[in-house]
This record gives sequence, structure tokens and C-alpha cells, in this order.
Amino acid sequence: MTITREQEAEIEAAREDRSTTLRRSVAALEALLYRPLPVLDHGFVRVIDYMGDDSAIVQAARVSYGRGTRKVSEDAGLIRYLMRHRHTTPFEMCAIKLHVKLPIFVARQWIRHRTASVNEYSARYSILDREFYLPAPEHLAAQSAANRQGRGEVLETAEADFVLATLRADAERSHADYLALLNDAAESPGYDPARSGLARELARMNLTLNTYTQWYWKTDLHNLLHFLELRADPHAQYEIRAYAKAMLEILAAWVPLAHQAFLDYRLGAASLSAPMLRVLRRMLAGERVEQPDSGLSKREFSELMAALAKDA
Amino acid sequence: MTITREQEAEIEAAREDRSTTLRRSVAALEALLYRPLPVLDHGFVRVIDYMGDDSAIVQAARVSYGRGTRKVSEDAGLIRYLMRHRHTTPFEMCAIKLHVKLPIFVARQWIRHRTASVNEYSARYSILDREFYLPAPEHLAAQSAANRQGRGEVLETAEADFVLATLRADAERSHADYLALLNDAAESPGYDPARSGLARELARMNLTLNTYTQWYWKTDLHNLLHFLELRADPHAQYEIRAYAKAMLEILAAWVPLAHQAFLDYRLGAASLSAPMLRVLRRMLAGERVEQPDSGLSKREFSELMAALAKDA
Amino acid sequence: MTITREQEAEIEAAREDRSTTLRRSVAALEALLYRPLPVLDHGFVRVIDYMGDDSAIVQAARVSYGRGTRKVSEDAGLIRYLMRHRHTTPFEMCAIKLHVKLPIFVARQWIRHRTASVNEYSARYSILDREFYLPAPEHLAAQSAANRQGRGEVLETAEADFVLATLRADAERSHADYLALLNDAAESPGYDPARSGLARELARMNLTLNTYTQWYWKTDLHNLLHFLELRADPHAQYEIRAYAKAMLEILAAWVPLAHQAFLDYRLGAASLSAPMLRVLRRMLAGERVEQPDSGLSKREFSELMAALAKDA
Amino acid sequence: MTITREQEAEIEAAREDRSTTLRRSVAALEALLYRPLPVLDHGFVRVIDYMGDDSAIVQAARVSYGRGTRKVSEDAGLIRYLMRHRHTTPFEMCAIKLHVKLPIFVARQWIRHRTASVNEYSARYSILDREFYLPAPEHLAAQSAANRQGRGEVLETAEADFVLATLRADAERSHADYLALLNDAAESPGYDPARSGLARELARMNLTLNTYTQWYWKTDLHNLLHFLELRADPHAQYEIRAYAKAMLEILAAWVPLAHQAFLDYRLGAASLSAPMLRVLRRMLAGERVEQPDSGLSKREFSELMAALAKDA
Repeated sequence: MTITREQEAEIEAAREDRSTTLRRSVAALEALLYRPLPVLDHGFVRVIDYMGDDSAIVQAARVSYGRGTRKVSEDAGLIRYLMRHRHTTPFEMCAIKLHVKLPIFVARQWIRHRTASVNEYSARYSILDREFYLPAPEHLAAQSAANRQGRGEVLETAEADFVLATLRADAERSHADYLALLNDAAESPGYDPARSGLARELARMNLTLNTYTQWYWKTDLHNLLHFLELRADPHAQYEIRAYAKAMLEILAAWVPLAHQAFLDYRLGAASLSAPMLRVLRRMLAGERVEQPDSGLSKREFSELMAALAKDA
Repeated sequence: MTITREQEAEIEAAREDRSTTLRRSVAALEALLYRPLPVLDHGFVRVIDYMGDDSAIVQAARVSYGRGTRKVSEDAGLIRYLMRHRHTTPFEMCAIKLHVKLPIFVARQWIRHRTASVNEYSARYSILDREFYLPAPEHLAAQSAANRQGRGEVLETAEADFVLATLRADAERSHADYLALLNDAAESPGYDPARSGLARELARMNLTLNTYTQWYWKTDLHNLLHFLELRADPHAQYEIRAYAKAMLEILAAWVPLAHQAFLDYRLGAASLSAPMLRVLRRMLAGERVEQPDSGLSKREFSELMAALAKDA
Repeated sequence: MTITREQEAEIEAAREDRSTTLRRSVAALEALLYRPLPVLDHGFVRVIDYMGDDSAIVQAARVSYGRGTRKVSEDAGLIRYLMRHRHTTPFEMCAIKLHVKLPIFVARQWIRHRTASVNEYSARYSILDREFYLPAPEHLAAQSAANRQGRGEVLETAEADFVLATLRADAERSHADYLALLNDAAESPGYDPARSGLARELARMNLTLNTYTQWYWKTDLHNLLHFLELRADPHAQYEIRAYAKAMLEILAAWVPLAHQAFLDYRLGAASLSAPMLRVLRRMLAGERVEQPDSGLSKREFSELMAALAKDA
Repeated sequence: MTITREQEAEIEAAREDRSTTLRRSVAALEALLYRPLPVLDHGFVRVIDYMGDDSAIVQAARVSYGRGTRKVSEDAGLIRYLMRHRHTTPFEMCAIKLHVKLPIFVARQWIRHRTASVNEYSARYSILDREFYLPAPEHLAAQSAANRQGRGEVLETAEADFVLATLRADAERSHADYLALLNDAAESPGYDPARSGLARELARMNLTLNTYTQWYWKTDLHNLLHFLELRADPHAQYEIRAYAKAMLEILAAWVPLAHQAFLDYRLGAASLSAPMLRVLRRMLAGERVEQPDSGLSKREFSELMAALAKDA
């Protein structure tokens, strides 16, 4: 993780600046506030602001249910009920704002989650730092044979060395040439006063997709959970999963009841189709069902077996 | 405004419950927190939670501009620039959650703003109170002759009396019959143990559209401003404008710089079309332009004259 | 269902007006186009326009997968895969526009689906017809004892008669008084030239919530499926379920492959939580699990049993 | 523009496949359907599908206005009125689906428009072609001195040659190394059976941001106009403006009345703030107002002068 001294000083200053509020605060999340959780080699996630807590979910649900909820006395039970039945609107009443530093190719996946607010560092205005993602050797893997969009075996040392050297060399050269194209008096090592320099909005196209960018990203708890359901999943690309993992820690500190309900009813749950449920009924009746007579395709049958074997 | 004792006690309790936070707080908004601002005869708006302040807008804009903003030293200037040029994403970094009590026909207009989160009191679960909106006599107006969707002259006393008596009688009878249909042991005056009572989700259809409902409504500052631009406008129906007016007060307490910029660049601004700008250029060159030779339709010409006469 | 003669003539005219297109057309949906499918006593759903078909889903998925999909040769298989794994974006490439006539209390539930476009008949501009929903006797039910937001037993004849008479009388009186308040020369039976009449935007508040309104509603296929998943569910209120049922017919005509996949993987599926899956594993291992030793709450245990018993 | 033979054949086949429909068709847009409009050096925009036309806007507005619109007899007038007053919902009733090929750095700007549906070619599944954007010499410009995010003077020939050679060399080397990292039997020139090859989802990070990607992009007319208002603006980066220009052509063919109204009331319009309107009133009264006594900042004053001088 690379935090500039300037950023460090800002963080410390912000953490000194206490105020009194009538809003609900969450001590465990306050302890994390502003501080970067490191992700990948130079990335991070920092909580900048938040609104609401577990009780805000309950409060919103109780407005909906009005007098009808007098008997649902326990918060955890209500939150678990809401999560299980996908009554999602009460979760929208909480919001969180993160500062994220991430490689551009990860940012391109992330931004597909449309129900969020984003302010990204603009390479039209400013010059991007010489920072790019290089995977740790244990994350350098071959194309999966089984899954067209996944990774398979980790690369042997020799090939991993070649890969890393190539990624590094190309990223460094592209960034060095980016600075040369910019010909910026302050930033470009070989600054030449005789040249005009290329506009920033153009020069940036020379950078590689592992260059780090950063943004403020704000979303509500419902959409955060949806993000985590997709991105903490083992099928998600490792690099975005690493961010999801840090965000799960934040979730646990912020809304512990919703976090546990999320693990039980979303991350650890399995959706079984009507044909799968028919097979399951036969199995529960004591029949030994094999794929060919299951009525399921091979793929579906193995998905069902995986769901039943899953230890969440 | 009708606040139950229970609600009053909750408000006072919430206002006693101070905590320390590292988040930015806004003293002027804290002073309003939880307290109902009365609107119409029984409605209100209460701020329940918020996130961010004027400085959060600036902070988000500066992430976008990166090092490029070193020179934009003044917050107010930056916020005004963002507002003028409709750079709206930094305003999305602030959020506010309101508790609103409002007549159903107003709720139906309000809900058309889709980029918000809502938890409404559910009449499938609970029984609606006997509260309905009756306009003050000065708001009882005839259909506008000029504007197919507006109001014209205020009604004479005799007609106003007839209108109010009719509205009141129909609302009361509908609510009384609603209770009779429900046949609820606790709530229905003529409760008859021999009858089953009609399900709540059905009985509610007997209520009139001026019955009050309530909801939690959360939105970000950008979408709040969009709401206010449309609903604080003189063309908006008076009843929703009354809510917008209360929300403008909240806005002024919460983000005073954004509020002033909003008055100058949005509420007080006029959008002049290309044909209008052509007429304006002729006028500035000293020509006296009349509608027939303006190239504008009668309607557009009068809209231009109104914009030029407008004293914002 | 009440279609005016004017509307009937428009429908026939629209159905005469054929054109040639290079776009994909769906014969089974063309057969339905413009024609109202009756819902409830006066409501309907009409398809006004559509874009895309099953092949558009496949095409969009194949752009994503690029050369990677050469082997996924069968459209149905790909659509089923997408549905099962909630790869939802290809479904967004299809869109449909409906004309719906529905009671206001149903419209209030419907509008909570935010990702859609709506143009509603405006009672600020125009006068609403004297049409209101009166349930058929078999849909007049008592409040459910088990479910705080549901219906229980159907009412006995005597109580049903009382309910219907009340609903009818209040709706009729409210509408008659609405016309009296408007005092419209063309529409109000007791028009009195000496009175101004009340503005439409105010007079409408006197109407009951079972009054019919109408709108154009446009959404994409992904959001339509989400709507149907929630509103064709047995827990949805009967009245909106009646619309969902008509829309399922439209779905079957429009995108038969997506429709079948939706029945198998969404409507007929069950989401089993991590704790439920643990119980299921014990049952499959031959153990007889009862609720008290299941680790599930009573409610969750009975939900699991219901999912296993469900015959979709 | 680079269209593969396969794509060309698909386009011709699609253009042979006529069907009869009861939906509204637009002859001028049918003439463009499927055919790529070239943008930049290898990019294009193709219309794949559409729904609605000018009359669909009118139809939706008339549902809203109900009987109230009997007198608004002319479609063009109504569309102009809707555009002028930002009554945007009727425009949402039309939708269009485009196939776009564009450099990744343009795609990153484009995707910030959230109210749209996207299916992008996935570099997790498939291998990206060796195609990257190289600006034409007349678009190679220096950083603007006046505008921190814009371009200034076009570069001299010598510097332009250096820039192009650098961009080309880095993009080619990055792509060649990308293929080497993949070590794909079919695609990598130096394929080595002894190596595993790096997973696609990782290798792609070595590509430069001017590499072309492609996607299907579907939006409604309202959001398309919003996109064009921002991206056809002279402040938008040239490269995305080039796409906006092609899309304006499509707009003119599809909805000619809305297109003309858009030019007059949106692209050619100016929003004048309350302080600007005060200055304007003094000018119209014959006063000669200079910036120092205008009450406007230098920047705002020059923006006002620009709006008044603008010849749209």
C-alpha cells in the first residue's frame, strides 16, 4: 500500500477532529475511519463516512410495518427475516463512502455496479503516479481448462518470472513514455522546454491497464451487499475479491447483525431450481439419483452436488 | 401537525442520546435533528440522519481534479462552479434521510422521483389513522383558465365552505367505513365479534386520497436538489411545494454554500433556447422586437419576457 | 374491462397499420399487440411496443463472451445458464411497453419498482372516469391470523354483501362529490354556472383508492422478471398478482425460452440458507431432523419444509 | 474502421431478414440499421435495434395529459414544449440499442452514464484484437493553458511524429507481450507448448488504454439526449465527441422532431443564473455593464458574454 505523507497527515488530522452528534455512531467503525486497509500491492480501501447502523435497518422496517411489528421484538431476528426474504429497502437506509485505490482493470469491473456514486481521480486534469499492480507469484495462474473465464494452476517459477518481468517492463516503459509525452516541467524527467507536451487527456492512453487509479465510492447497504454477493464469490476475479474481502471486514464492524445474516442467507446460501428440488425430493425419499436419470444437465447436476456439499 | 405522545417521547430520547464521532457534523442541522417541521394541516418533515456537509462536496471534487485543484483555493467558489456547470457527482456524496408525513395524493407525486430510498407505513400490516388533509381556505382555488394543470382564483367563501364540508364529510365517512370493514377488536368502534372483518390490504381501498401516510425517505444531495428544482417551482402543486419549502430550510442549515449556489444557479436561473438567444441579441443591439417578428411562438415569447422580468 | 369506443377504434386502426422492418419481430407477440388482456373488473394490460426477443439475449451474452462462446451452440442452454447464474445484463437488452389500467392502491405498490418508465394519466389535467375496483366475492377475505400482511378465509355471504355495498356506496359518493366539486360544465351533472368549481389537482383528493387510473409503463426484460418474481409470488396481494398473471402470458408469447427458464430457475426455485443446507445434509445422511435440534428457528424450519414440499 | 468479414456477412444477412410488424417503424433509421458508422481510426457505432419514434413521445405525453390535450393538435409543438420544459418522461418511452467499438479510455468516460444497459466484450473470456487508437495529427494537441482539462494548440509536426511513434510502439509492444503472456496455441505467434500461458483475466492488464473494446449499449431517448448534451459539448474530450457526433446523425434519422427540439432547446440553449439575469436586465435597460461592476466573477462574466455571443 502506498499512502503519501500528505495523505497520512490528512488522516491523522481527520482522526483528531472529533465532534458530538445526535446521530447514531458505531464505535467499531469509528475505530477504522479514514485508515487505509491495504489491498493488493499498492491499493487500499478507507471508510470516509457512513450513515446508519443495524438499528436504522430495524427502524425503517418498523415504519413499514407500523403497529404491526409490536411483537417482533428482537432486532437480530427482524434483520435475519428481512435478509432471508429479500426485503431489501430497509437496508437502503444505511450508506457508506469509501476511498479506494485500485488498478484500472479492477475499476472497470467495479464500475459495472451502477447504483453507486463515484468521483474518480481525473487523468484529464492531473498526472497519474507511477504505480501499477504486479500480482504476487501465488496469484499468477494459467487459464482454467474447466472455466472459460477463470484461472487454473499456479504458474511454475520460470514462467512466473517471465510474466512478472514482462508486466513490470511494459508498465514502466509505458509510464516513462507517458511522462515524456506530457513533457511536464515539474513531473517529466527529460523535460524539454522546446516541446509543448501532449495534453493529459491524450497522454493517459499510453498507460497500461494495471496502473492504479483512485476514487470516492458511495453506496447504500443494500447495494453494498449485492456488490459483495457477486464480488466475494469464488467465481469473481481474485483481484476484485481482495477488495471485497476488505469490505467484508468493514461490514462486520459497521453492521454486525446484518453481516451475520448476510453470511447465512446470501453468501452461504444456494438457490435450488425447480428441477433441482425435484431431484432433491427423490433423494430425501431414499432414492439414489444419478445424473443421467436426474432430468438435469451434467452442469446442473454437478452444481446441485456442489451446493449440497458446500460447507459454508 | 399531529405527533403522537409516543413519537414525542422518542424524539426527546433520541435528542438526549449524544455520541462522539470522527465524521463531519453540522451544528445547524444537529439543532433540527429528529424535530418535526410542520407542513400543511397534519404533515411534517423530520431529519433523521445525514451524511456529509459542504466540505464533502469539495473533497469529492478535489479527488476528481487531483493535483489540478491546488489553485482552486476557496470552497464556496468551487461549489458555485460545480453547480453552475452541472458537475453533479460531487453532490451525490452527501445524503439525508427524512421522516415525512404527507397526504397520499402528494405521496403519489413525490414517489415519481425514482432515485431515492423509501420505506412507507404499510396499510397491509397496520391501520391508518383518521387523519386527512383539508386545505386552508386561501388554498382552495378554481381551475386555472390559462394553465390546464394549475389553479386560478381563490374560491369565494360560500363555495369554499361547500368544498370543505364535502371533503371533510367524504373523508370522515370513508374512514369510518374503513374501520367498520376492518371490524378490528381494538380499533373499530362498532366491533362485532360475529363478523370476521375484511383484510387490511383490502379495506384500505375505501380511503380517500387525502388520507395521510408516512415514510422514511433517503436521497443524496444531487437528487434532493433535483427534487427541489421541480417541486419548489411555482408550477408545482401548492401542497408538494409546502414540503419543498420546509426542505429548503433544512438544506440551508445543512449545506449553506450549496444552498446559496442552488438559489443563484438553479432556482433563480433561466434556460434560454437558441431561438430566444437570437431574439435577445437583437434586443441588446437596440432593436425593439415584438412577438410576431421574433420567430418565437406566442408561448415562447411570453416565456422569454417572463425570464427577463423575473426577479430572483 | 372497460375500453371506450374511441380506444377500440384506435386499437383496430393500429392493428391495420403494418410496416416492414429489419428488426427482429415475434409473431406470437404481434398477435397480442395493442389488444387489452382483461384484469380485475375494469383493468387491463396491453402491449404497445417491444424490442428484442430470445435471440437478443443470446446475442448480448455472446458479445460479452466474444470468441469464448463458439462452443455454446444452443440458445436455450445459454439462456438457462444465464438465468440460473443471475447473469442479468443480457436480459436488459429487451424492452417492453405496456398500457395498464389499474386501481390506485395497486398503482401505489407497482410504482415501487423504480427501474421503469412511467407516464400516468394526470388528474391535474383531466377528469378521472367513474370507475372503481370492487372485488369479486371470492376475493373478499378476512385478515390472515398467521400472516400479518395477508388474507385468510373468504368472508361469509352476509359480511361480503355488507363489504361490497359499503365499498360501492363510498366510491360512488366520493366520485359524485368529486364531480360536484369540479363543477365542470361538460362533466358535472349538477353544473352550476354561478360557481367557479374547484381545481382538478385539488378535487381529486376526494376520490377513494380503488378508483382506476392508467399509465404507460416501460421496462426492460430483467426488471420485468424481477417484478414478476415478486408480484407473481403467492405472498403478493391478489390484485397485483392478477396483473402479474397477465404479464406472464405476455412473457410466454414474447420470449418463450426466457419464460421457461424463469419458471424453472426463479419462480419455482428456493433459496436455502447456510443453516438450512446444514440441516439438509443431515437429512440426506439419513438423520431424522426435528425443529428443536435443527438449529433453525420455528419459522425457518417451516420455510425449509415448505421449500422441500413445494411442487413447482 | 475495422469490420471483420464475419461481421460484414452478419450485417448483410441481418439486412436481408425483413419481417412485418404492427409496431411503428422509422424508414430513415431502418436504412441505417446494422450498418457501422465509422468513428476515429477503428471505431464505429451501429444501430442494432430501436423502439418507438416521435409519435411515441407524443402518445406518452397524451396519456399523461389525458383529455386535457385535445387542443394541442400538433406533434412538433408538443415535443418542443416537452423539451423546453424538461418534461422528460415521455422521451423515456423510446429506446435504442447500439453496438459500439471504442478505445478503452473512451469507454471509461462513457460508462459513467449509469442509466443504460451494457454488455461488453469480455477479456476474461476472449482475446482482444491488436487494435488501438492513434489520433490523427490534427487531434494531437498540447495541454490547454486556460482550461485545466482541455487541449490547446495542435502540436508541431516534429513533436506530433514523436508522439505518434511512441504511442504506436508502446501499444504494439504491450499487445505483442500480451499474446506472449497468454501463450495461446491459436493466437500467440511464439506459442511454446512447454509453457502454461497466463490466464486471460490477468494478461489483459498489460494492454494500453487506447486498445479497442466493444459493447452493446442500450438506453432510452431521455438518457441518450442527456449523454449527447454532455458529450457533444465542445468541453467534452474530442474522442468521445466523435461518437456523439455519429449518434446525433442517428438521432436525426430516428426522431427528427425531437432532434430539432434538442438542438434548439438543449444543445443551443444557455442557462443564465440569477446574477447573470440581473446584469442582463441592466444591459437591456441600456446600461453598459463592465465586469468589475457586474457583481459577477471574471469567469462568470465571460461565460455570460460567451452565451450572448454564441451563434447556435
